[in-house]
Amino acid sequence: MRKTDFSEAACPIARSLGVVGQWWSLLIVRDAFAGARRFGEFQRSLGCPKNMLSTRLAGLVEAGVLRTVPASDGSQYHEYELTEKGEGLRVVLIALGQWGAENLFDGGKEWLSAVDKQTGRPVAPLEIRAEDGRLLDPHDVAVRQGNPQVKPLEGATE
Amino acid sequence: MRKTDFSEAACPIARSLGVVGQWWSLLIVRDAFAGARRFGEFQRSLGCPKNMLSTRLAGLVEAGVLRTVPASDGSQYHEYELTEKGEGLRVVLIALGQWGAENLFDGGKEWLSAVDKQTGRPVAPLEIRAEDGRLLDPHDVAVRQGNPQVKPLEGATE
Repeated sequence: MRKTDFSEAACPIARSLGVVGQWWSLLIVRDAFAGARRFGEFQRSLGCPKNMLSTRLAGLVEAGVLRTVPASDGSQYHEYELTEKGEGLRVVLIALGQWGAENLFDGGKEWLSAVDKQTGRPVAPLEIRAEDGRLLDPHDVAVRQGNPQVKPLEGATE
Repeated sequence: MRKTDFSEAACPIARSLGVVGQWWSLLIVRDAFAGARRFGEFQRSLGCPKNMLSTRLAGLVEAGVLRTVPASDGSQYHEYELTEKGEGLRVVLIALGQWGAENLFDGGKEWLSAVDKQTGRPVAPLEIRAEDGRLLDPHDVAVRQGNPQVKPLEGATE
């Protein structure tokens, strides 16, 4: 089967997964947040084959998640940095990291976590909230069709 | 190359991607949140090959994200439902959906969104906050090694 193209899917989750839904792509973004800029830095962190890393880096540049810039030391190499679009993935990584930390680790083990730079303390658990600030649990959320920014849904309160 | 095993990775993001980092797995979870329970419902929604769907559903059951239950109509079929662990992925899907809606759509197009059941309005954008409630932007967040629940980091404020 050919690789499925999600670039025109109606669902924004599907489109996002089309861009960053492979292991390596999101782990590259994770490493970029952790400070990696050079091919060799990503390669050492991920330990994945070079050709796979090249393909994924090029895909993330093409998708506008990373951009290439001249090396900061003036050498012939280039470096990769997150675009604003790429930086928007921080919350996705925090959501995945918090779910993994809660569900896939035994209590005492060492792990990596996202922390507030100012205090060194972990960031607060992400919360799902309504427009008016009410805390929502997963059962309070439904999936609706249509762009509510453009065409208000029936029954909306504003 | 063999499939990489992330089940003992130090990073909770990597472990999470080991469980749900493939397109189809997270789209199956999305459909479960949208109400799909039967094999045929997932198949119609996803349009993916049946053998791939079987493999992914079995993987999600093995990982404790879905569980099988007898069919609600008393027939011989079974249905799939989200476990509590699976319901914790709601915030991951909302994070992915909000990023996709913001970055991968033109303004006027129809799309699917997560809404507050009570009002039909989209849920609020997820926010990254410090323990004390301060709003953090992506640059205010660092990645630190070690389990801060067990062994407080130096410089922590409590």
